[in-house]
Amino acid sequence: MEYRIEKDTMGEVKVPADKYWGAQTERSRNNFKIGNSGSMPAEIIEGFAYLKKAAAYANYDLGVLPIEKRDAIAAVCDEILEGKLNDQFPLVIWQTGSGTQSNMNVNEVIANRAQVLKGFKIGEGEQFIKANDDVNKSQSSNDTFPTGMHIAAYKMVVETTIPGIEKLHATLVKKATEFKDVVKIGRTHLMDATPLTLGQEISGYAAQLAFGLKALKNTLAHLSEIALGGTAVGTGLNTPKGYDVKVAEYIAKFTNHPFITAENKFEALAAHDAIVETHSALKQLAVSLNKIANDIRMLASGPRSGIGEIHIPENEPGSSIMPGKVNPTQCEALTMVCAQVIGNDMAIAVGGMQGHYELNVFKPVMAANFLQSARLLGDACVSFDEHCAQGIEPNHKRIKELVDNSLMLVTSLNTKIGYYKAAEIAQTAHKNGTTLKEEAVRLGYVTPEDFDAWVKPEDMV
Amino acid sequence: MEYRIEKDTMGEVKVPADKYWGAQTERSRNNFKIGNSGSMPAEIIEGFAYLKKAAAYANYDLGVLPIEKRDAIAAVCDEILEGKLNDQFPLVIWQTGSGTQSNMNVNEVIANRAQVLKGFKIGEGEQFIKANDDVNKSQSSNDTFPTGMHIAAYKMVVETTIPGIEKLHATLVKKATEFKDVVKIGRTHLMDATPLTLGQEISGYAAQLAFGLKALKNTLAHLSEIALGGTAVGTGLNTPKGYDVKVAEYIAKFTNHPFITAENKFEALAAHDAIVETHSALKQLAVSLNKIANDIRMLASGPRSGIGEIHIPENEPGSSIMPGKVNPTQCEALTMVCAQVIGNDMAIAVGGMQGHYELNVFKPVMAANFLQSARLLGDACVSFDEHCAQGIEPNHKRIKELVDNSLMLVTSLNTKIGYYKAAEIAQTAHKNGTTLKEEAVRLGYVTPEDFDAWVKPEDMV
Amino acid sequence: MEYRIEKDTMGEVKVPADKYWGAQTERSRNNFKIGNSGSMPAEIIEGFAYLKKAAAYANYDLGVLPIEKRDAIAAVCDEILEGKLNDQFPLVIWQTGSGTQSNMNVNEVIANRAQVLKGFKIGEGEQFIKANDDVNKSQSSNDTFPTGMHIAAYKMVVETTIPGIEKLHATLVKKATEFKDVVKIGRTHLMDATPLTLGQEISGYAAQLAFGLKALKNTLAHLSEIALGGTAVGTGLNTPKGYDVKVAEYIAKFTNHPFITAENKFEALAAHDAIVETHSALKQLAVSLNKIANDIRMLASGPRSGIGEIHIPENEPGSSIMPGKVNPTQCEALTMVCAQVIGNDMAIAVGGMQGHYELNVFKPVMAANFLQSARLLGDACVSFDEHCAQGIEPNHKRIKELVDNSLMLVTSLNTKIGYYKAAEIAQTAHKNGTTLKEEAVRLGYVTPEDFDAWVKPEDMV
Amino acid sequence: MEYRIEKDTMGEVKVPADKYWGAQTERSRNNFKIGNSGSMPAEIIEGFAYLKKAAAYANYDLGVLPIEKRDAIAAVCDEILEGKLNDQFPLVIWQTGSGTQSNMNVNEVIANRAQVLKGFKIGEGEQFIKANDDVNKSQSSNDTFPTGMHIAAYKMVVETTIPGIEKLHATLVKKATEFKDVVKIGRTHLMDATPLTLGQEISGYAAQLAFGLKALKNTLAHLSEIALGGTAVGTGLNTPKGYDVKVAEYIAKFTNHPFITAENKFEALAAHDAIVETHSALKQLAVSLNKIANDIRMLASGPRSGIGEIHIPENEPGSSIMPGKVNPTQCEALTMVCAQVIGNDMAIAVGGMQGHYELNVFKPVMAANFLQSARLLGDACVSFDEHCAQGIEPNHKRIKELVDNSLMLVTSLNTKIGYYKAAEIAQTAHKNGTTLKEEAVRLGYVTPEDFDAWVKPEDMV
Repeated sequence: MEYRIEKDTMGEVKVPADKYWGAQTERSRNNFKIGNSGSMPAEIIEGFAYLKKAAAYANYDLGVLPIEKRDAIAAVCDEILEGKLNDQFPLVIWQTGSGTQSNMNVNEVIANRAQVLKGFKIGEGEQFIKANDDVNKSQSSNDTFPTGMHIAAYKMVVETTIPGIEKLHATLVKKATEFKDVVKIGRTHLMDATPLTLGQEISGYAAQLAFGLKALKNTLAHLSEIALGGTAVGTGLNTPKGYDVKVAEYIAKFTNHPFITAENKFEALAAHDAIVETHSALKQLAVSLNKIANDIRMLASGPRSGIGEIHIPENEPGSSIMPGKVNPTQCEALTMVCAQVIGNDMAIAVGGMQGHYELNVFKPVMAANFLQSARLLGDACVSFDEHCAQGIEPNHKRIKELVDNSLMLVTSLNTKIGYYKAAEIAQTAHKNGTTLKEEAVRLGYVTPEDFDAWVKPEDMV
Repeated sequence: MEYRIEKDTMGEVKVPADKYWGAQTERSRNNFKIGNSGSMPAEIIEGFAYLKKAAAYANYDLGVLPIEKRDAIAAVCDEILEGKLNDQFPLVIWQTGSGTQSNMNVNEVIANRAQVLKGFKIGEGEQFIKANDDVNKSQSSNDTFPTGMHIAAYKMVVETTIPGIEKLHATLVKKATEFKDVVKIGRTHLMDATPLTLGQEISGYAAQLAFGLKALKNTLAHLSEIALGGTAVGTGLNTPKGYDVKVAEYIAKFTNHPFITAENKFEALAAHDAIVETHSALKQLAVSLNKIANDIRMLASGPRSGIGEIHIPENEPGSSIMPGKVNPTQCEALTMVCAQVIGNDMAIAVGGMQGHYELNVFKPVMAANFLQSARLLGDACVSFDEHCAQGIEPNHKRIKELVDNSLMLVTSLNTKIGYYKAAEIAQTAHKNGTTLKEEAVRLGYVTPEDFDAWVKPEDMV
Repeated sequence: MEYRIEKDTMGEVKVPADKYWGAQTERSRNNFKIGNSGSMPAEIIEGFAYLKKAAAYANYDLGVLPIEKRDAIAAVCDEILEGKLNDQFPLVIWQTGSGTQSNMNVNEVIANRAQVLKGFKIGEGEQFIKANDDVNKSQSSNDTFPTGMHIAAYKMVVETTIPGIEKLHATLVKKATEFKDVVKIGRTHLMDATPLTLGQEISGYAAQLAFGLKALKNTLAHLSEIALGGTAVGTGLNTPKGYDVKVAEYIAKFTNHPFITAENKFEALAAHDAIVETHSALKQLAVSLNKIANDIRMLASGPRSGIGEIHIPENEPGSSIMPGKVNPTQCEALTMVCAQVIGNDMAIAVGGMQGHYELNVFKPVMAANFLQSARLLGDACVSFDEHCAQGIEPNHKRIKELVDNSLMLVTSLNTKIGYYKAAEIAQTAHKNGTTLKEEAVRLGYVTPEDFDAWVKPEDMV
Repeated sequence: MEYRIEKDTMGEVKVPADKYWGAQTERSRNNFKIGNSGSMPAEIIEGFAYLKKAAAYANYDLGVLPIEKRDAIAAVCDEILEGKLNDQFPLVIWQTGSGTQSNMNVNEVIANRAQVLKGFKIGEGEQFIKANDDVNKSQSSNDTFPTGMHIAAYKMVVETTIPGIEKLHATLVKKATEFKDVVKIGRTHLMDATPLTLGQEISGYAAQLAFGLKALKNTLAHLSEIALGGTAVGTGLNTPKGYDVKVAEYIAKFTNHPFITAENKFEALAAHDAIVETHSALKQLAVSLNKIANDIRMLASGPRSGIGEIHIPENEPGSSIMPGKVNPTQCEALTMVCAQVIGNDMAIAVGGMQGHYELNVFKPVMAANFLQSARLLGDACVSFDEHCAQGIEPNHKRIKELVDNSLMLVTSLNTKIGYYKAAEIAQTAHKNGTTLKEEAVRLGYVTPEDFDAWVKPEDMV
């Protein structure tokens, strides 16, 4: 590989000749060989692109950056957002906990690329745009990284997580209505209980997701607050007056999301409770989805030796020899995602609780876990919805067989023949492995006609 | 010990002669010898007392319970709420996951005590009030336990957790104002950084708690929904029409909290996402409080070899030989509580995610962990507030010494003598272990008078 | 309540007149009103009793304590171990993180009680035995609390946890043998699969526990190392030569467990990785037991609408009206314990990771969570064993019905009539809801006699 | 993109023309669009390559596979191991929980690639080697995936994690010796305490890692057991006699690690407690490393307003204006890794506890979290060692200043002038902000010469 020489205050560094990044990025590559390269989430880089552009605009408006530099910076930010510079961000999550090196990576790439767009060559030095003085103007790693983190997190939640969950929720609501008259056996403690409808059962799942969505949306106000303008320790040293409000307005405009400047910048640098808060709602959704997916695979189990009350779509060949072996693979993918999200919640808590003084230095690990959870939950709900939930159909035959066969229906007879005779019927049927009707008639307590008239599961739901 | 014989459908059981509980409670005692006896939280029993009384009133209003039974049940419920029957609830958390046995414990105690109040003796059978038919009327374990759980959880959060946190928050707000002009060195990455005021630093803590309180309050609507009226599987089988709304109204009236009937009873039995949701906010507060308490003990560390920027109250003798060894014991108690709450959050998630079909059977463990967290956080904040936070005082001498001594102040000279000379001053001072002023003057870049005029930490905050 | 006045270096304190504790205990009661009083686990106090006695013996042997003081201290320690002084230890977990106050509580109680045994009255001052100089001689809170913690933890694991798990393990091994010929349908992805025997299935559970026990025992060597002799920071300042080895020998002798002095005392005070390590094995067992208990309740589900392949004991009345509703309550208690243990593991990790310099100050919370887990797991395994596992019986009729009915048996025909015809038989049976035999004969591929001879589930296991 | 048509039992699928994978891989790509593509860890694919080759050898030895097929399969496996086919494995973690689709991905790639090596073209059908009948012979997803998982996990732990930790451990041992005479102030509760040496302090860190390594190695025996030979449910249906032992021998031979066949195959499919067990040791190491890295950054804090007792290497420019701001970036990367590992431990527990019947279907998520932790810990320890630990140097001046200045040294005077005079000296020095020596002389209790002779921190360690 060919290299060029870049310098910083510590001396010379060899950088790949064709890359826009500079000395500080390269030092980070060399000093943090931890896990796969490039693990810093792309969404964070995208968040930086929005904020660097917004900062350039705010700086120009406030008279501290000339318009040609503003436009040059903005042009490169747009390229980043279009995905044209994806190979320029090689750093890992496991770097400095303030994300300084990723901030510098972005600064260096923007500066060098802007120079090239202006006609310079990489390596000629900062002739037109300076990474630190121009691109990073009125900023510090300490306020940019959490801003990039909130932009990325908010966008992911609003653009991926919520739509995915809402899509699944809509399907469950539809199914709840569709199956509102399908009377089936209820189960408590995994044991047979009084009946309910399949629609009612599914309405419980839908209610879980509705609560989860509400909880998630409740957190968005906190997440929409951004740290930019706090600079190094939250005081906003070296920013022009009005900068924090203005830069947040630009970020809101460019992202089309209602970002505002954080009321308390000290909190916004030293703690990342907004990340903790929103991820808690993701965890709650994982708890809900795990229950839902687990129920669905149990209800679909069989085909002969399980519960078998519902059919779910067959998406892949099960066993070639064994028809009906429809593995609930979407349930499995979704519950694995839930396990991941619950683990991520702990990683985020551990990071969030260990801030020191003016700066929390677990930013990249918190951001990465958050973004993984938000993405996976959204994607998995869409996948589960399209390849499983939409195709749920009752196995009417099996449902009827189980409900008709149930001993629990005897409660309907209490008011007709008294508790003790009813209990005797049920106990005898259980002992003999027969139906309630058989024993009710055989014991002479009820006629077949009365039994059919009185014992109606559909009246018990 | 003396015993009496009680019977249930499985036969005879020996019960301590002087206890109001009956056969089912005793079976549970015998079958679940797991951990210390009586571990089921008292607040759950109290929650049951409210709901049994409310159920009796609703049942009477709807014509299914005579007034003398209503009043008898209510009288015993009031005794429970007054703490007069505390020794009648010996069961453990680690019983059936629906809490059925604690529901029966309450039913049996109310029925037997009511009979005694009526003039019967324990052991004479259910002559006046029946545990199942009267006390448990229009109810099932499956809807009573989650109702008791929500009553207990809501009350604890609103009566203990929130006031405790608000008390600490108020103190922090006061201190933030009080110390708003105390300029001190900032620290990022634990390293010296640009200055801020002690008030600003503390304002960040206050902001964390304000966000946490808001997050916590956001969850209360969900927690205020109660399952009662759903009975066995959520359909409300065996309840009179209008019962669910009416019973919730009585619970709201008796507890003075805005409980309402759950819109979807299937969700309310099969999932306990409201517990997960509210506890997530408790976890967030634990994350915040851990950061705050940790900062405070670091700031107070010393007396000679630590940071020493603040004094905290001396509550216990430190070392008798070593004056000034004020151990930050309140910080330690609080951070231990935080560790517990974070662990409890995981126990609750694990319970919440494993519901099956119509019933989640991790109710007692979820309730117990929730109540412990809510209680500990509230109590620990009060303790921390009274014995630590209120007594925080700046060590002005030390704060001034550190800020005056800091190399970071050199940034003030940039605009006066240029970046390079400023850097030279700082580097020389660092190398020689001297002050900026000494080197600035020695290098001939600044007069002593100008230095004092230009380098003012108070202008940097 | 009557009080007496006690003094310490901070002044006077009012202490309940009839209690042996002194000023420092009382200050802790007043300063840490967090949760229920007396929450510090009794096993920790017991651990302290062993170590105080051992220290007295070692101090006497090494010439720094007279024999009459040794014997007086030892006599009170024996009283504590006999449970005679249980009401003298009112402190909570949520105190200083070094457990200093519980160390002082023990010191004060021993000193005052020893004086009373000698004929003095409480409140007359330290005329015979001094809490600090005698009872605490050659000790510091910093090495006593972790020693008490290891004694308590080791004893609980070896005396309660391991025997409980081994008891359940023995039952599972017995059942695995007993049911080694009971051929049943296998299930993967919750779906019908090729058969295995019930004994094989249960042998997997037994293997899980065997691995867990081995993992748990692997950790005991670390847990057997005790910190005593390290005093304040690990250097052993103020201890006579040879003290650390000797005191460990006495602890080993008195407890009958192989405790040894920690090789590195700095680690033993500053970190509690031994607690983390052993609890990890408890967590592993919780993971295993959750799987086992969950399988058992699914296999026992029904009686009509579940899997129903095994019977488990009926320990409490299910529904009075519904025979056969045997709720798997022991499974529920056990899985709730598992959820708790998994949460506790996180609380312990959070405590363990936050030690600072020479001392970890999360000792009480780590100890309390550990002891709860170890106790609950042991107790719950005994309860589960006695009230569930021992009574597991196959439902032979149901097992046979399901295995005979299974479409998976068709694989046996592959080698006889070829894959394609076999598949056709299975697909037709699935479509028509018939048996393999019916379709095999109807399609003319196999005679009834051949079918019976060729399709034998017992040959597939 | 160009496509070819592949068929399976569900019909036709369009597959990218130039890829070796077939219909089942493609269906998985389409059905599981969850997160980034190709997230299934490369190490799992590598594990599959070893086991497919071993299975081919065992099948040949046992007479069920011809030698030319064995060699063809082995040749492709070697290509996979050489990294030549990295772009052929596009599937994600979030697929079926048995990993079936990744097993088929490997089978399809091996079969198609082997045909191409033989001279066929992709798309001509399985003329020479069949994915199912040949490559997957004597195997099932249910035993191959856990085998691949154990191979990958074992290799990562032994080849990356352990060497990385041992490297850091060796450095700490070296530093502990090197600094064994550097007397410094001790700190408990973050407060000044009696002295110890820097070597002793670091020896505690080394001891933590030694315990962690021992704990980790204790788990390897369990992890070395592989499931292969259990096939679908653990019975080993469709495998030749002796296959399980033989295939494990080949895996051991090819990987050069001591793999053996699992004693109980039912456990090996239905539970992944070996993964839980080994990861627990990784979590313990994360707990240890978090403590160590946190201590080091606190000790290195400053340069003027922190503790400043040690210097750590300056790897990147700190602030250009502020000399001496050496951010402890390696500590930050390492503690972020620790947070991740602790979160992963929970994800693994949640997966491990939810197995059902004969199969745990959280295999991919457990494997992925395990491999991430093992890799990150190993890498981060190497990075921390090379860029931080090796360069730790005492700041002798600062250490001496703090220890000389400490009030704690007064304890040395107890035996010379008595406790009360010693205490008076200390209290006066604390009040006046002076040194012990100044006050001791001023109060007339000690001569300067005696003070120097008697108060020697080096005698207190």
